[in-house]
Amino acid sequence: MEESYDLQNMIKIDSEPFLSMRLVECVPNFSNGIDSSVVEQIVGAIKSTDTVKILDIEMDASHNRSVVTFIVSFENAVNAAFNGIKVAASLINMEKHHGEHPRFGAADVVPFIPISGVTIGECVELARKLGERVGSELSIPVYLYSEAATKDSRRNLENIRNSKFQYEQLKEQINRQEWIPDYGPSVVGSAGASIIGARDFLIAYNVYLDTQDLNIGKKIATALRAKDGGLAFVKSLAFFIKEKNQIQISMNLTNFHKTPIYRALELVRLEAKRYGLSVTESEIVGLVPLDSILNSLSYYLCMDRIDRKKILEYKLLETQ
Amino acid sequence: MEESYDLQNMIKIDSEPFLSMRLVECVPNFSNGIDSSVVEQIVGAIKSTDTVKILDIEMDASHNRSVVTFIVSFENAVNAAFNGIKVAASLINMEKHHGEHPRFGAADVVPFIPISGVTIGECVELARKLGERVGSELSIPVYLYSEAATKDSRRNLENIRNSKFQYEQLKEQINRQEWIPDYGPSVVGSAGASIIGARDFLIAYNVYLDTQDLNIGKKIATALRAKDGGLAFVKSLAFFIKEKNQIQISMNLTNFHKTPIYRALELVRLEAKRYGLSVTESEIVGLVPLDSILNSLSYYLCMDRIDRKKILEYKLLETQ
Repeated sequence: MEESYDLQNMIKIDSEPFLSMRLVECVPNFSNGIDSSVVEQIVGAIKSTDTVKILDIEMDASHNRSVVTFIVSFENAVNAAFNGIKVAASLINMEKHHGEHPRFGAADVVPFIPISGVTIGECVELARKLGERVGSELSIPVYLYSEAATKDSRRNLENIRNSKFQYEQLKEQINRQEWIPDYGPSVVGSAGASIIGARDFLIAYNVYLDTQDLNIGKKIATALRAKDGGLAFVKSLAFFIKEKNQIQISMNLTNFHKTPIYRALELVRLEAKRYGLSVTESEIVGLVPLDSILNSLSYYLCMDRIDRKKILEYKLLETQ
Repeated sequence: MEESYDLQNMIKIDSEPFLSMRLVECVPNFSNGIDSSVVEQIVGAIKSTDTVKILDIEMDASHNRSVVTFIVSFENAVNAAFNGIKVAASLINMEKHHGEHPRFGAADVVPFIPISGVTIGECVELARKLGERVGSELSIPVYLYSEAATKDSRRNLENIRNSKFQYEQLKEQINRQEWIPDYGPSVVGSAGASIIGARDFLIAYNVYLDTQDLNIGKKIATALRAKDGGLAFVKSLAFFIKEKNQIQISMNLTNFHKTPIYRALELVRLEAKRYGLSVTESEIVGLVPLDSILNSLSYYLCMDRIDRKKILEYKLLETQ
């Protein structure tokens, strides 16, 4: 008997994609940070797609570059990004573009980031589908990068596009074997090329220590970061924060699934102990996915994991 | 410029009450656990209310009693409960009711529980509004209990209704000063009386220890529970769990805002230490509100609090 009731969802929400909570973040970079009417038209095209929610728009005049952050259902993610790229390609002429930041094209870099109910592998699929459409429908060369890369040499964005190899250099060298695009023609038009990929969500996380000694802070930051022998998905720096009169270990956690918040904090604590220092507080900068909260709490509560379905508010959102 | 975009919510959800996430749980008990057509009609009336989602229905034949658990927006909570009570009052005749469990009326006990964006004080308001309507529109005597109680003697449910004072006794004594109802007439009809109130969410939480010694388990459970000098909002018992070959400290946290999960766990750990024992794991039984997760994690991360607005999925739900 229970079942017959349980199967009926009485909260009336029409948005099926939202209900299913399969959400993706997309952070496309466009090569115009000066003309707000151009950026408005691009954002308008993205917003015209079902289920899109714009979280942030940053226009940077000196870089002549804008970064749009939006959330979209998995099903609409390719469409939303494509709509933005199409408008950007029609409005931005790379022949006339100047700015400090290295750039390849009108829609320069387009990463998909898994947020909820979506794997990084599925975001790789999104990147490929988007790349295929951008290549064939807009005739723009597309390079897959990061998790979506088809060659190791294209995993790091900086290996593809940097201050010494930009739009102008690509235009000359795209016929070389190493620059054959993953999708689209080996011809660079006025919209340039796009670099499309999938990467994990980045958490900005700071831990404060009861010291003013920046040298100690730097040693601890070094012990934490991947490239110096620390945790695999941590980038870290030390700062003296005047307002708090304390040292801050400022970290980027680039894959919270594999290197969770708790492990970064506890390793700071462990390294600080050697100098007789303690953690005074920590802070999360910006938004974090629910899963990053649950995987850290499950550690402290001695649980293997806490399923999001244990959260009452989530239970309510489930598709019935 | 950012603002003009940020203020536009592009996820199309029509349910305004849900968007605002002001949610209340209601767990009415009805005095029929045998006739499923009666229970279906009651549940049907509750479900007919906007924003209601039924989470669970338990029919207990030996107690001749059913417990319905539903979630509803704050704005619709009184209506949803009233619709159920009205149908219950028309279908259940207390003159013919028999069962093991003490009972006062057709709709016996009706608690409101804050889930999200609602305070216990606001749930007290809901209880009063519902009581007023049940009293005046259905002519049913109503007693407010728990947080909604108007007298200290009515705070504990067991002080109001127990195996020695039920429907039959109330019918005889309702004219006494001490039994004047908070709402409705001092007359008990075939629908009996209803006990309406507000209480906090209850979390069932178990902690396992690396021992098989039930005596030690009992000592630790005693140290934890409120009435024996432990934590104010903890009820605890010790069990030997055969499948795990370990002792389980089984707790009910009756107010996770005031006595959070982490404090219960850490006190078990502290008491276990005295016997050289460690916590092996812990488990949350059933669903928990997101706030109970956030307030425990904030402790471990040395943060004053983690706002639910830091959670990306929540940001998406916010009313714009």
